[in-house]
Amino acid sequence: MGQSLTHDAFLGGRLHIWQPKRGYRAGMDPVLLAASIPARAGQTVLDLGCGVGTAALCLATRVPGLSLTGVEVQPDYADLARRNANEAKLPLDVVTADLRALPGSVSARSFDHVLTNPPYFQRAQGTESDDAGRETAMGEEVPFAVWLDAAIKRVRPGGTLTVIQRMGRLPEALAAIGSRLGACEVLPITGRPQQHAETFLLHAVKGRRTPFRLCPPLVTHQGESHRGDREHYTAPLMNVLRNAAAMPGYPNS
Amino acid sequence: MGQSLTHDAFLGGRLHIWQPKRGYRAGMDPVLLAASIPARAGQTVLDLGCGVGTAALCLATRVPGLSLTGVEVQPDYADLARRNANEAKLPLDVVTADLRALPGSVSARSFDHVLTNPPYFQRAQGTESDDAGRETAMGEEVPFAVWLDAAIKRVRPGGTLTVIQRMGRLPEALAAIGSRLGACEVLPITGRPQQHAETFLLHAVKGRRTPFRLCPPLVTHQGESHRGDREHYTAPLMNVLRNAAAMPGYPNS
Repeated sequence: MGQSLTHDAFLGGRLHIWQPKRGYRAGMDPVLLAASIPARAGQTVLDLGCGVGTAALCLATRVPGLSLTGVEVQPDYADLARRNANEAKLPLDVVTADLRALPGSVSARSFDHVLTNPPYFQRAQGTESDDAGRETAMGEEVPFAVWLDAAIKRVRPGGTLTVIQRMGRLPEALAAIGSRLGACEVLPITGRPQQHAETFLLHAVKGRRTPFRLCPPLVTHQGESHRGDREHYTAPLMNVLRNAAAMPGYPNS
Repeated sequence: MGQSLTHDAFLGGRLHIWQPKRGYRAGMDPVLLAASIPARAGQTVLDLGCGVGTAALCLATRVPGLSLTGVEVQPDYADLARRNANEAKLPLDVVTADLRALPGSVSARSFDHVLTNPPYFQRAQGTESDDAGRETAMGEEVPFAVWLDAAIKRVRPGGTLTVIQRMGRLPEALAAIGSRLGACEVLPITGRPQQHAETFLLHAVKGRRTPFRLCPPLVTHQGESHRGDREHYTAPLMNVLRNAAAMPGYPNS
């Protein structure tokens, strides 16, 4: 990686993650993604594009006894994910691979839960980055629809898919899912109550037929605007971020 | 129609609508639909499936100087729409036609604004009705995707489409729109702040490319639950329902 790392606390210090000081850095989104997976001990989990392993390891911290697989195309991020899993003594098996050409060890399997936090910015629209890692994580090598297709294929019958993504892509996400999954529930995520939601969580189940549902927005911050540098997360969100709680009321199905 | 009619006040008494006592009856939804059309004097408007004309006539009441066309397949509803327009002295031309076989007077034209409130319930899922009018209005003779396709085709370049529908059909609506329209903005509508939204308004513009946006929910009722029989609409909604105001902040594009 040829650059310095930071060692950051997640889930109130229950988990520490090595990640590059520059480039793509895990924030709130992988934590929210992990908090939304309705996994139980003994189940299998796949994280497509796991980066340094933040989402998968947050989930493994909250739910003991899972068998987790992460796929990451960038070898140095994959190495950090292995290091993070080893140091946390958490059961994450990291496979270095392009999700368009998964090795048989992954492509022959289906999983109880598939989670994914695909890159947010389209290369054509984004500002160019001078960091190759950030470029791949943020700049989209793989089209979003291809990414989701790969994820959907790995969900076992009765299993779940959970995605976090920027709101502008909700139509593409729903189109990719079509009738391949059901019981689709979208949770909009917004900083303040009266703002447009910037991102969404989407949860769906293979083999269900329940109609689409839109949940009330998850509001991340208290009050109408920032009041200085202190954290002003809402209490339910603080419980997710600091106490490793499951997302309250989501998914509902 | 062979049954009795009621004469109901809309927009704080600015508009009165004859409608069958039994069968499909206009409530809040056509009023919200009409309040969301960014129409200006001199523009053309098409309401596909106009029923007794509630949405089109609410719009004509708020925005003088429009040229409005309504299409309605059921002759007795179409007759009531004509009667309602005549009595209100509002410029609504009602065409009795199936939207799958529009006459040349409609199919040869494109409109500045197309609005539609397609039937909400799928026949297979709904409770059977003993009223044929209600059955057609609520029971879906025309598949939703076909309905939206007919609407999208009638939008002129730069013109708008506005739809109100139950939330379970948002994925179908977005799929029908695909890349044929842009600047798509969805407004979820919910009775109470922490409930799932039951319906949505969708607004989109032909020829725009702005990404999809999800608005903060429109909450229709004050407080956490009903407190007796009095109306407890929120103040912005009351302004729309009783003062013929435009929907506040929607659409934004």
